[in-house]
Amino acid sequence: MADGKQSRPKARTVRGFRDRAAGELAAERAMLDTIRRTYESYGFDALETPFVEYTDALGKFLPDVDRPNAGVFSFRDEDEQWVSLRYDLTAPLARYVAENQQFLPRPFRRYQIGTVFRNDKPGPGRYREFIQCDADTVGTASPSADAEMVMMFADALEALGLRRGDYAIKVNSRKLLDGILETAGIPADNLELRGAVMRALDKLDKFSSDDVALLLGPGRKDQSGDFTPGAGLPDRAITRLLGFTGTVDTDGAMSGVGDNAVTLANYELHVEGSQIGEAGVADLKAINNILVGCGYDETRVLIEPSIIRGLDYYTGAVFEAQLTFPVQNEKGQTVVFGSVGGGGRYDDLVARFTGQRTPAVGFSIGVSRLLTALQMRKAAVAAVAPLVVVTVFDKNDAAPAFAMVSELRRAGLRAEAYVGTGKMGDQFKYADKRGAALAIIEGPDERAKGEVTVKDLALGAELAKSVESRAAWVGNREAQVTVKRADIVAEIRRLLAREH
Amino acid sequence: MADGKQSRPKARTVRGFRDRAAGELAAERAMLDTIRRTYESYGFDALETPFVEYTDALGKFLPDVDRPNAGVFSFRDEDEQWVSLRYDLTAPLARYVAENQQFLPRPFRRYQIGTVFRNDKPGPGRYREFIQCDADTVGTASPSADAEMVMMFADALEALGLRRGDYAIKVNSRKLLDGILETAGIPADNLELRGAVMRALDKLDKFSSDDVALLLGPGRKDQSGDFTPGAGLPDRAITRLLGFTGTVDTDGAMSGVGDNAVTLANYELHVEGSQIGEAGVADLKAINNILVGCGYDETRVLIEPSIIRGLDYYTGAVFEAQLTFPVQNEKGQTVVFGSVGGGGRYDDLVARFTGQRTPAVGFSIGVSRLLTALQMRKAAVAAVAPLVVVTVFDKNDAAPAFAMVSELRRAGLRAEAYVGTGKMGDQFKYADKRGAALAIIEGPDERAKGEVTVKDLALGAELAKSVESRAAWVGNREAQVTVKRADIVAEIRRLLAREH
Repeated sequence: MADGKQSRPKARTVRGFRDRAAGELAAERAMLDTIRRTYESYGFDALETPFVEYTDALGKFLPDVDRPNAGVFSFRDEDEQWVSLRYDLTAPLARYVAENQQFLPRPFRRYQIGTVFRNDKPGPGRYREFIQCDADTVGTASPSADAEMVMMFADALEALGLRRGDYAIKVNSRKLLDGILETAGIPADNLELRGAVMRALDKLDKFSSDDVALLLGPGRKDQSGDFTPGAGLPDRAITRLLGFTGTVDTDGAMSGVGDNAVTLANYELHVEGSQIGEAGVADLKAINNILVGCGYDETRVLIEPSIIRGLDYYTGAVFEAQLTFPVQNEKGQTVVFGSVGGGGRYDDLVARFTGQRTPAVGFSIGVSRLLTALQMRKAAVAAVAPLVVVTVFDKNDAAPAFAMVSELRRAGLRAEAYVGTGKMGDQFKYADKRGAALAIIEGPDERAKGEVTVKDLALGAELAKSVESRAAWVGNREAQVTVKRADIVAEIRRLLAREH
Repeated sequence: MADGKQSRPKARTVRGFRDRAAGELAAERAMLDTIRRTYESYGFDALETPFVEYTDALGKFLPDVDRPNAGVFSFRDEDEQWVSLRYDLTAPLARYVAENQQFLPRPFRRYQIGTVFRNDKPGPGRYREFIQCDADTVGTASPSADAEMVMMFADALEALGLRRGDYAIKVNSRKLLDGILETAGIPADNLELRGAVMRALDKLDKFSSDDVALLLGPGRKDQSGDFTPGAGLPDRAITRLLGFTGTVDTDGAMSGVGDNAVTLANYELHVEGSQIGEAGVADLKAINNILVGCGYDETRVLIEPSIIRGLDYYTGAVFEAQLTFPVQNEKGQTVVFGSVGGGGRYDDLVARFTGQRTPAVGFSIGVSRLLTALQMRKAAVAAVAPLVVVTVFDKNDAAPAFAMVSELRRAGLRAEAYVGTGKMGDQFKYADKRGAALAIIEGPDERAKGEVTVKDLALGAELAKSVESRAAWVGNREAQVTVKRADIVAEIRRLLAREH
């Protein structure tokens, strides 16, 4: 560092990374603590795996020496092994379960909240470091585990202050969709066609049924004239698919509240003769029986055919948590907030390591998206407590100010004495910049009378920005009060209560 | 992954990294939440910087392409820039302050709790990923900020359940030490000699004064016959240095409680004529005035000459938090627990970026070490709440079990229904492996009578391990009770209270 050739580095975060300050952190912590309490009350245990895993254990090929694997931050450690920053919490779970299988209860249920990393080109609002919150149940194919996952997430949303009608956990089954495709005559091995059909059906929450019919058939031209090629299905198959999705949703708009029993009865008709389809209906019925038995009706959980979610991965039930309250989008249009998380059943979690298929079901929350939603809904997300700044009149006699903040803190208030070296004017500017609610002044006159002056910084903010001298600032009478030093705790509580 | 050449990866954590399970995480979270509440009550704001920084911003040279910088995990991102995992929380703070200077209050005070990474060869108990908890005040040279740091950490330790006499925050000053060296005739520019003297004085908590005198003078032979070369000081200088350290500590053992006023008076005599030494005493006096004014006497804070801490870095006051209660070391000897954190004043935080020296003071906690200490002291560290497992007698009728756990959870208990597919014997083994406190059985007979059977798993643990059938397990009468289904919440509370 003493090298003369080195110039001063520029202070900046890495592109796609960001610093996060107290307000956001307090709200996020309150939200995650609530989710954590809900998950723990269900008997899910916390787990923290390392930020770093061997690259091969993450399920990616070894990167080239010159070129880390796209999407993943990979590098060599001191042992010359390739290691990577985790890009999700599921791959480390797989490694953990395979490594510790003989010690774990089966089923094994854990939740993990942690930062994951993506080595992608960042964009506006797209970060390369973000927090995920996952819950997974590994080692059981029972629909009970799926039902539990759905109820647990509904409970978490309500613990966060959302009310019925604010959200819906939507449930579907991949087996059921496979059955529908089978009865519609789409071969199970035509992956390209299946993909096109899934992408078209996945549009049912945005497009009308007629538009989706075009995507399933000949193709669709949008308002700008752009043409999207269709899946080329015959009319009979399209009618069948849309008849299925129409069990809940006939006009292409999200339907709000359906009737799960009716939906299930309708599903049964549609998959008749397809073994996998019938198995899907049986799973959904078993899930719904538990939901109904525990009072989770259509005001909380909706069985809905339009829920698709990355079908390459999922093998059974799929879930999506949607927030259904209206918000303004960037164009000023009123839309529903939409998805804040989801998941489903998957089978090949540990097979990469052990060769054995292991049934599992998981649910992942988009943490920053859910936090945004809660803030829009003004749901209960903690704010930082209001701050009291005690100024120091004589810096050679700072002890009384520190004794005062000690007293305020013992009473549960958030208080600091000024630790800088500036004069009173600087101290008021400091308190203002800190966003403090109140500032306290105890000069020699006040002390002689056993009093202190308390300045309301919200009221005095405009003035405080422009004043340099204590006299000018203190002169703004309407924004300050004089109180007995002996009554300081009660007086500060009273003043804070007035504002907050 | 479909590549036939790829064999199955071995499931293992990266060397030097580890998974952490629920018990440790709950205790650590409780500890950090308490520290966080204390720091926030002092008006320190939370900050989270990214895990990744540009390598040049961390203050390391750009690594070779083939060989990342020793000690730091470094790699290239998608933009071909060298980035590194943070190795502490101070270098990111420097970057943050330099980047946001104009927006920050001055003094700027923040705390940060976060994982840091070291690319070192791991050893037993030495990990490459660990959590640090730092508080720093940037932009003021006032001793008030130092005093505040000391009081805040003492408050945090007491909030964690430690009592006076369990700990001491020890305070010294680098300026003072510089003054002593000056008056002992050791030139300020002889860095090698100063280093040897500091290392010798740093041994005062382990060695007798006589042994330290040998290290300051001709050198010392230890019991095994190994010779450590000495600093080669003349007797007069050694007497002076040991006279200084002897102000509190005359026999080389840690002295427990001294008298800070006496220590300061003695310091004054020792540094007479040294400008920097006198400045050091003035700082310590200013710190002590605030401490005394707020009631932090020698039962909490000790001014002590034996506190050295990495002097290359520090420029003024230095602190060390020592836990003074006795513990057994690995050889079975009784020793005091020792340091759990420390810090001090430093000046060149943002100078690398801005060219301007900025006074700062910080305090860093060794999180895992403090947690170990609290657990040894059986101080208040939260445990996971006891778990109730409700078995599922008929897996086609699981809803009543889920309704029962819903009811228990609404009453604030931690409860789960079995979500696996095993028979009753498997379910008992599962509950046992989960470490559940109680298991509940509601078979058809119980249901007909409006009753449930509650099994005490602590009492029944031995038997439960060997039984396969429900009949044998339920037969162990002394470990189970039958209660009314309608009274389930009250009965479970009563049973849990009996055990915990």
